[in-house]
Amino acid sequence: MTHMPVGIIVNGATGRMGYRQHLVRSLLAIRHEGGVPLSDGRRQQIAIMLVGRSEPAFREIAERHDIETRTTDLDLALADDRFSIYFDALTTSARGVAIEKAIEARKHIYSEKPLAGSRAAAERLVHAAHAARVKTGVVHDKLYLSGIRKLERLLKSGFFGDVLSVRCEFGYWVFEGDLQPAQRPSWNYQADRGGGITLDMFPHWSYLLENLFGSVLSVYAHRATHIAERVDEAGFTYAATADDASSALLELEHGVIAQINSSWAVRVNRRELIELQVDGTHGSAVAGLFHTSVQPREVTPRPAWNPDLGDPHTYASDWIDVPDNEAFENGFRLQWEEFLQDVAEDAPYRHDFASGLGAVELAEAAVDSCVTGQKVEITRTMESHP
Amino acid sequence: MTHMPVGIIVNGATGRMGYRQHLVRSLLAIRHEGGVPLSDGRRQQIAIMLVGRSEPAFREIAERHDIETRTTDLDLALADDRFSIYFDALTTSARGVAIEKAIEARKHIYSEKPLAGSRAAAERLVHAAHAARVKTGVVHDKLYLSGIRKLERLLKSGFFGDVLSVRCEFGYWVFEGDLQPAQRPSWNYQADRGGGITLDMFPHWSYLLENLFGSVLSVYAHRATHIAERVDEAGFTYAATADDASSALLELEHGVIAQINSSWAVRVNRRELIELQVDGTHGSAVAGLFHTSVQPREVTPRPAWNPDLGDPHTYASDWIDVPDNEAFENGFRLQWEEFLQDVAEDAPYRHDFASGLGAVELAEAAVDSCVTGQKVEITRTMESHP
Amino acid sequence: MTHMPVGIIVNGATGRMGYRQHLVRSLLAIRHEGGVPLSDGRRQQIAIMLVGRSEPAFREIAERHDIETRTTDLDLALADDRFSIYFDALTTSARGVAIEKAIEARKHIYSEKPLAGSRAAAERLVHAAHAARVKTGVVHDKLYLSGIRKLERLLKSGFFGDVLSVRCEFGYWVFEGDLQPAQRPSWNYQADRGGGITLDMFPHWSYLLENLFGSVLSVYAHRATHIAERVDEAGFTYAATADDASSALLELEHGVIAQINSSWAVRVNRRELIELQVDGTHGSAVAGLFHTSVQPREVTPRPAWNPDLGDPHTYASDWIDVPDNEAFENGFRLQWEEFLQDVAEDAPYRHDFASGLGAVELAEAAVDSCVTGQKVEITRTMESHP
Amino acid sequence: MTHMPVGIIVNGATGRMGYRQHLVRSLLAIRHEGGVPLSDGRRQQIAIMLVGRSEPAFREIAERHDIETRTTDLDLALADDRFSIYFDALTTSARGVAIEKAIEARKHIYSEKPLAGSRAAAERLVHAAHAARVKTGVVHDKLYLSGIRKLERLLKSGFFGDVLSVRCEFGYWVFEGDLQPAQRPSWNYQADRGGGITLDMFPHWSYLLENLFGSVLSVYAHRATHIAERVDEAGFTYAATADDASSALLELEHGVIAQINSSWAVRVNRRELIELQVDGTHGSAVAGLFHTSVQPREVTPRPAWNPDLGDPHTYASDWIDVPDNEAFENGFRLQWEEFLQDVAEDAPYRHDFASGLGAVELAEAAVDSCVTGQKVEITRTMESHP
Repeated sequence: MTHMPVGIIVNGATGRMGYRQHLVRSLLAIRHEGGVPLSDGRRQQIAIMLVGRSEPAFREIAERHDIETRTTDLDLALADDRFSIYFDALTTSARGVAIEKAIEARKHIYSEKPLAGSRAAAERLVHAAHAARVKTGVVHDKLYLSGIRKLERLLKSGFFGDVLSVRCEFGYWVFEGDLQPAQRPSWNYQADRGGGITLDMFPHWSYLLENLFGSVLSVYAHRATHIAERVDEAGFTYAATADDASSALLELEHGVIAQINSSWAVRVNRRELIELQVDGTHGSAVAGLFHTSVQPREVTPRPAWNPDLGDPHTYASDWIDVPDNEAFENGFRLQWEEFLQDVAEDAPYRHDFASGLGAVELAEAAVDSCVTGQKVEITRTMESHP
Repeated sequence: MTHMPVGIIVNGATGRMGYRQHLVRSLLAIRHEGGVPLSDGRRQQIAIMLVGRSEPAFREIAERHDIETRTTDLDLALADDRFSIYFDALTTSARGVAIEKAIEARKHIYSEKPLAGSRAAAERLVHAAHAARVKTGVVHDKLYLSGIRKLERLLKSGFFGDVLSVRCEFGYWVFEGDLQPAQRPSWNYQADRGGGITLDMFPHWSYLLENLFGSVLSVYAHRATHIAERVDEAGFTYAATADDASSALLELEHGVIAQINSSWAVRVNRRELIELQVDGTHGSAVAGLFHTSVQPREVTPRPAWNPDLGDPHTYASDWIDVPDNEAFENGFRLQWEEFLQDVAEDAPYRHDFASGLGAVELAEAAVDSCVTGQKVEITRTMESHP
Repeated sequence: MTHMPVGIIVNGATGRMGYRQHLVRSLLAIRHEGGVPLSDGRRQQIAIMLVGRSEPAFREIAERHDIETRTTDLDLALADDRFSIYFDALTTSARGVAIEKAIEARKHIYSEKPLAGSRAAAERLVHAAHAARVKTGVVHDKLYLSGIRKLERLLKSGFFGDVLSVRCEFGYWVFEGDLQPAQRPSWNYQADRGGGITLDMFPHWSYLLENLFGSVLSVYAHRATHIAERVDEAGFTYAATADDASSALLELEHGVIAQINSSWAVRVNRRELIELQVDGTHGSAVAGLFHTSVQPREVTPRPAWNPDLGDPHTYASDWIDVPDNEAFENGFRLQWEEFLQDVAEDAPYRHDFASGLGAVELAEAAVDSCVTGQKVEITRTMESHP
Repeated sequence: MTHMPVGIIVNGATGRMGYRQHLVRSLLAIRHEGGVPLSDGRRQQIAIMLVGRSEPAFREIAERHDIETRTTDLDLALADDRFSIYFDALTTSARGVAIEKAIEARKHIYSEKPLAGSRAAAERLVHAAHAARVKTGVVHDKLYLSGIRKLERLLKSGFFGDVLSVRCEFGYWVFEGDLQPAQRPSWNYQADRGGGITLDMFPHWSYLLENLFGSVLSVYAHRATHIAERVDEAGFTYAATADDASSALLELEHGVIAQINSSWAVRVNRRELIELQVDGTHGSAVAGLFHTSVQPREVTPRPAWNPDLGDPHTYASDWIDVPDNEAFENGFRLQWEEFLQDVAEDAPYRHDFASGLGAVELAEAAVDSCVTGQKVEITRTMESHP
């Protein structure tokens, strides 16, 4: 026996990530299996309504996946009482208006990141949702990468002793578009279109650091536009006005220092596109998307610095991989399941708008620091519920 | 046919590095081969006088290596006109007084780094040497590491196109002294004894960046004392008061950004104890003590971020080693040869006290930044001669 | 400045192990370096007197190593007041009488293991030494194997969490003497000549377990004579009457279980001739003579038992070697240095006759258990001094 | 031309192992191929009746595999004369009653192990079956592991000369359920629910030893509960009351000694999850689930024990793998075929209830030994028929 299906309005999930991760791998997979399991043993089935622009692609998606409800009119969609959840995957600039309408319509809201383009806009959404007493959630997908989940396991087991420092390298080379087409959209490199790696990545760093290591107390950041000229999707040369690299130094609670480099103008000299090195008194780990390796202090070598002789030690052999020991489900789906369970059971959802606001605050503080050349203290406006 | 031997007063070179690198590998090797070659085809032989404390070790070194002139009295040494060069390898705090005496005695001066413990003290030495019209030099040994020399070759060949960014990781785990003895002396961890990794390493970063990439325009630094308690050589627990890790962001001329992590509380997850990654428009390189590998833009991969599937790409295979193609001589010796040649031929020596002062200035600016939480602009008091 | 040399009477060290380890690697090496360092900064030099049978080999050893004092008369040796330490490396059956004489002569005693062939005989020696107030020591060489020292480091660092169990495999194939000559002496296989692997090895297991893991509370042992007939040094076939293999189960304090197999009739299917596997709540280790590898719980795999499919997991890759991080000195010498220091400074020596008595007690209890088929509780007659 | 199909009542084979190994891999595969070949050249086809609880899973299995006969009423099933064989895969506590009913109904019986929870209960079943003159069989799956089959081949060929000793290591780490979920059910760790590794594994050791090496004459065992607290399937912490590790020493006929460690609290430092080392006068072997390697005495090395020098010998290279040289069929199926053939041809089945009783007797003797601390002599109540 199952509950009545909960209806989800899906707005803007026709892009590559939205379609693949949110629709196919999460919502349609959940629907196919009869919904999400609840604590009372029953399953909460879902119904999906697609909102999108009148395109063949949009229609085709709906038909291919047997999604009977679809519309191009958001207001119409929000007026349908059978659909109590609104999911927003629009561009950041379009997001605020749509979410405000959905809150007015008393929908529970689940949103892609970043929640908003500015702290003020994010705060407005938090307050509106709070006043309307609807549940909120923001995508925190990097927390669900299998490498990060293994890192979380290490933290939980006390592997590190005291965590001392975190170093994160993220990035790869985005082609300029002249000799080879760029693999990111041109708006990413244009400030007036909401581009820039700082705004793009700091929301991720915010929830990763806070969930893994503790509150961020201050940030110093420096951004650069390394590649000044690029060629866009249509073959036109344009001036890159947004930052394509940023370096940051963050102070966290318990004296932990985090150093984060994000760059679209770096060539990858590591095992994975993203790597976090965590050093602790009792051991260290390097976590990526898929792999996490560790070095307990008992196998830490005693290197000798000798400019005369080649160093015969192979440092790579001091690290050993943490096994998966479980099948890591798709992270987008896991987060959807958690959100749907909390909505169904009226429980507080941990990655809520307050967390999304914190992410926007950190991104804004990082930009402030870039502008002023000063370390910026972080004061979180509000805490997440749980 | 040779010139008259030039006499070198060697003060304080009985420690591990001083004895091995300066005395055995440099000066004694040069003496053994009949001196340094000059541009007129002749060789400039050297004579060595050891200054040191009255210890059996000191006597033993002199006897083992057949160094007939030795004394415990610096003044006596400086009064000897047959010796026109003074080399100082004392501790930083003892260095100033000794060098000032040597300048008064009109000796040419070659000094270990850092030149002084403060900018003011370093400036005094620069001015005194300038007034006395003696030649000066400061050890810049990291420039002579074979990995760095191959990096220099890359820079010279225009391999990088425009250099965009430099990232430097330096460090290893220094044991706390409880379960395993520490591999660095305890004074390194005590602020009142001149310890701290910032003061230790920033002189190196100064000459490396300036010689490889250009002037440093600003620095932001953050330091930490990760391991608060250590056990010293005698087995006593002590409080670590000096910084054992620092992270810095530097702006260089031509828009180059440098990000440098130095730490004695990090476990080595890289090929070598020090690694500089340099990214440029046309290619990237990773240089260490011994190895340098490159990735020209033509082999740069196009990574796909896909949280669903393991990334099958092996990023390590996109890099290829730069061959030595020459036998890299000991760097300490090479620098000694350059200094001795310039003294003999009255040519300007490039790594002079002005460069040593610049290194002290950068270290001091980094400490200022740590204290104020602000980026500090660098204004070089004076340029090196060449 | 040094103390007066302490004289050491060395009785019976002309065999392979005694000559190589005690004389050459320990005593002669110590003498060559001017003695052992004491806590007051001075060195305690030693003088050596050899006692042995009138053989050319004996004389040759003395001459080769410049040992001026030698005799075939133990009583004469013991009467010499310049020699205050007596070292016994005779066979077990000859040991008791010799040590008793030495105690009467008020020498400090250092002895090879086992201290005696029976508990009663060992007790007599302990009491006699105690009454005479001389210092005593028994060789505990396996504690000083570099693999075991790294295991000790792991124990000290708390790596294991709670230690649960210890499994020790010791042994190799001793040839029967027919097709290939045996590599152990024939008396090892003859009960009436003091042979048997239980009596040979249990003294080692005693001090290893007690020093590493805690007191032994009970032992169950089973012995076998697998190879019933062997060929001796002279080519004669003889009946093996002593045990050549034994298996034991021991209960230690804190609930630790130890399972030990010792065999001269086993073929080596492991990395080293001896291996101890220690399993704890937080990690496991395998320690041998030279190597020690670990598996922290964070990298412990989750094996699946599936008789249908080959198991693709490589269990060896879940273990990582503990680095030496220090130069491990010869263990026989280290123990000699400790004993000589404690004698010179009148400090209690930790591996004393009481510990040697404990070792004999355990061996005797193991034999009891073999005979009765019952677990035997261990009651240590006396504790070591420190 | 085929015989009439023989009907098999399958009771309780919906669990993971029962479903996969007995139903899919054995019975359905046999049915699919037209039955088992008999000595007269014909095939004996089978018919299957499922007995189970009224669950969707049960129905789904029957439908998926086209098993037309199914019931939830065992009495009804046993009353059907077309089905002359009863297979029991219930829990140990439910097994006795069901088998007794089946014997009364004059079915031939095939049973999962252990046959019963106590010697008395097992004896009752043996007598009842004997009186009813029905054929009996008990699963002996480990005998059919490909590594064990290659070991049997070695034994049969006389490879070992005289077998001297057997050492068996079985086990792996079962997670505690806190940081990672446990991979075994919680009842395994609870004494009052029939848990404990001794009861679980000794039935296997019984038939393995008896079939490979000869009768077991005595057993000494020691059991422990290493992990005192675990977390169950529902997330609740519980006290582990059953043993999770046991060590045993067994005497076998012909003077063979067997030493067996079974543990769920050990980390795997060997090639496979289970390994038997067999040492004989002429050679040794190590057999696992899939691999068996040998060392004939002609390649046995002559190791030197030298604490001074690292041992350069690689002992692993002294072993060589025994090739499969045949395709090892699924062991559960092979045993089913043998049983069905013996039923069809009225031949004595070798792995009968008498063997199953012997297994229960050994497990009970092991537990006795754990309790009394004494070696327990084994007196087999009855021998198997063949």
